[in-house]
Amino acid sequence: MGNTVSTSVIRRLPRYYRFLQELMNNGIIRISSRELSEKMGFTASQIRQDFNCFGGFGQQGYGYNVSELHAEIGKILGVDKGYKTILIGAGNLGRAIATHMNFDARGCKLIGIFDVNPELANVEVGNLKIMHTDKIESFCNENSPVIAILCIPKESAQEIADTLVKHGIKAFWNFSHCDLKPTFNDIIVENAHLGDSLMTMVYNVNASSDN
Amino acid sequence: MGNTVSTSVIRRLPRYYRFLQELMNNGIIRISSRELSEKMGFTASQIRQDFNCFGGFGQQGYGYNVSELHAEIGKILGVDKGYKTILIGAGNLGRAIATHMNFDARGCKLIGIFDVNPELANVEVGNLKIMHTDKIESFCNENSPVIAILCIPKESAQEIADTLVKHGIKAFWNFSHCDLKPTFNDIIVENAHLGDSLMTMVYNVNASSDN
Repeated sequence: MGNTVSTSVIRRLPRYYRFLQELMNNGIIRISSRELSEKMGFTASQIRQDFNCFGGFGQQGYGYNVSELHAEIGKILGVDKGYKTILIGAGNLGRAIATHMNFDARGCKLIGIFDVNPELANVEVGNLKIMHTDKIESFCNENSPVIAILCIPKESAQEIADTLVKHGIKAFWNFSHCDLKPTFNDIIVENAHLGDSLMTMVYNVNASSDN
Repeated sequence: MGNTVSTSVIRRLPRYYRFLQELMNNGIIRISSRELSEKMGFTASQIRQDFNCFGGFGQQGYGYNVSELHAEIGKILGVDKGYKTILIGAGNLGRAIATHMNFDARGCKLIGIFDVNPELANVEVGNLKIMHTDKIESFCNENSPVIAILCIPKESAQEIADTLVKHGIKAFWNFSHCDLKPTFNDIIVENAHLGDSLMTMVYNVNASSDN
């Protein structure tokens, strides 16, 4: 399945899911692809094409059933998977990610937080106690996490990533400002390069004020 | 200028900039487009095409001068612009963004942090004191910020955004999990939807384990 759907369609799925959640919260039961397109800013044909990538979701002339569509997309996204997840780097950003994100609702279960600073050991973040990074390997061997969130300086990111892959990590959510070099072909890297995002915005501000 | 360069080229610019910075840090003075392409994982022809969007950077048969290219791309990105920036929402994520990002190196100057919680008023974050959101309008009128970072719940994001646009904000870096409806055509929105990024990764993990 994963290989036949384009990246851009996949990137729109969380947005559909989020939007359908809002419709449910507002008590809306049914919506046509036309209404959905007006509200989301995609064309109706785009929406139908996106949904057809997953076999379509049976709009029977009267619109989509909002909660059914939400559940279907959630299933495709794997929101019920509870993938075991660890976070490396409990600085300001790492702690904010650990406490701010609703991991459970997005298919992850945060089970361990690590930092190289010994003074942070046993400090509580959410309901977890920070562990020293020298415990990562034994922790992985015992608990088999599959996802790692990297919130560490770029200088140490590649080395830690290599170690984690050896201990069974399959995917990285990478906040470190570096491009991880894949050690194996099947490792998934989702970059959250906040600095790049900020600079893209500044470029656009700069370009628009030149006009 | 801004209108003629594609979004995907623009999104690659911060990565070039970051990569050239690393080369400089490692004392590398010159690099060919072939070497650059091998290290970055783009084709050499892609790199030349990207640079040609900005008039090319005069590779005279012996490679690019790293520090000159870094400076040129930095200029295009507007890293020296120091756009006045405010941050709304000083929860875990907002405070982490305020302290974690090197705004000065990316063309922004963070001049104000606001939160709706009166108990946070005057709490220091970095070298700024949090102000109550009821001070936003007078602050904008006096200081004319152009960029706003939104780290507030989605329920209040649109209303705050509308107010900010009325007070001169031209661009939003939007961490709120909602899609802002543009009130005016020329407002720039750069979304940093961390939840969507996480869900995209989980989809890919899920899809790869189906195979």
